[in-house]
Amino acid sequence: MLARLSDQMKFIEEIDQLKSVQRKTSIVSGERRENSAEHSWHLAVMALILDEHADASIDVLKVLKLVLIHDIVEIDSGDTYAFSRRDHLEVAENERSSAQRIFGLLPDDQRQSFIALWEEFNTGVTAEAKFANSLDRIMPLIHNFLARGTVWQENSIHKDQVVRRMAIVQSSSHTLWDFCLSLISEAVERGYLQE
Amino acid sequence: MLARLSDQMKFIEEIDQLKSVQRKTSIVSGERRENSAEHSWHLAVMALILDEHADASIDVLKVLKLVLIHDIVEIDSGDTYAFSRRDHLEVAENERSSAQRIFGLLPDDQRQSFIALWEEFNTGVTAEAKFANSLDRIMPLIHNFLARGTVWQENSIHKDQVVRRMAIVQSSSHTLWDFCLSLISEAVERGYLQE
Repeated sequence: MLARLSDQMKFIEEIDQLKSVQRKTSIVSGERRENSAEHSWHLAVMALILDEHADASIDVLKVLKLVLIHDIVEIDSGDTYAFSRRDHLEVAENERSSAQRIFGLLPDDQRQSFIALWEEFNTGVTAEAKFANSLDRIMPLIHNFLARGTVWQENSIHKDQVVRRMAIVQSSSHTLWDFCLSLISEAVERGYLQE
Repeated sequence: MLARLSDQMKFIEEIDQLKSVQRKTSIVSGERRENSAEHSWHLAVMALILDEHADASIDVLKVLKLVLIHDIVEIDSGDTYAFSRRDHLEVAENERSSAQRIFGLLPDDQRQSFIALWEEFNTGVTAEAKFANSLDRIMPLIHNFLARGTVWQENSIHKDQVVRRMAIVQSSSHTLWDFCLSLISEAVERGYLQE
């Protein structure tokens, strides 16, 4: 039991580093970039509030697990910008190694279940993974909108790119998809996002 | 439906401010103080890893809800240091007003259920609230230990104060209680904490 608890505590200490992984998006006040740990918290609370809008019946506990751990691999491989031109296969390969190392700190049974959760999020096939991925897309849309499109403009992002990026929301919640489309239109009208 | 979603989104935007509430404890690297949003994420993952050590049978989803929202009131009332001499009744009164305002942004049914969760955490009577509170005590113990007791020393904290502060762990998990006692002893031996 002591060895098991000791491995668990090492993992808990290790993931503290997610608080130092910077994302492209800012916190709403615009004061600084947000980090992946506080972003994961925000998604988890969002899941508790918005789960009623999922079109399919979903297991909220599963959604919470998915969003809480989906970014942990970034401790080794960093955050990849949504519209980055980096080689996606290479990014995926790096993240897989990170998952093996970091979740590998856990006792075997937990390592296996955490890697399975992380893969479920990435594959995006189950209703829970679709919903979790949707939240992960909607959150930066809201942040970018509230920040008047600063990051979109820095990266010359067009409306079509954002709509394509949001596609998974359509397969998960028609209510949230309508919300996204209307926010994107409003962003174009206000000049935050190029037509 | 639109008004409901709009209220939910206002709440989601509002709680972004928890990312700017500073705690006394530092992140493990010691580079900066941690904020209450990333702390809440850390507790939630910790709950997923350590739930097996609870002495009672617990509902993990409930524990996650409790830790994810327990600090949201700090957006209005700030973080209170564990060993602060501030008037506890006054702190409690302020936090109650904060809960009314912030959770009050949500649709009625969600406002009620979030305030109930926040009260359940604070009352600390249910097995889930005891376990959630235990995690909330253990995390700063680990952080303070890893930071070689800097914050304890700044505030002239004695071993007895820390042991008393950890008491709720004893009512929740004998495994985690043993872990705490051995970490506290080690902290005294290393001179991080006064006998």
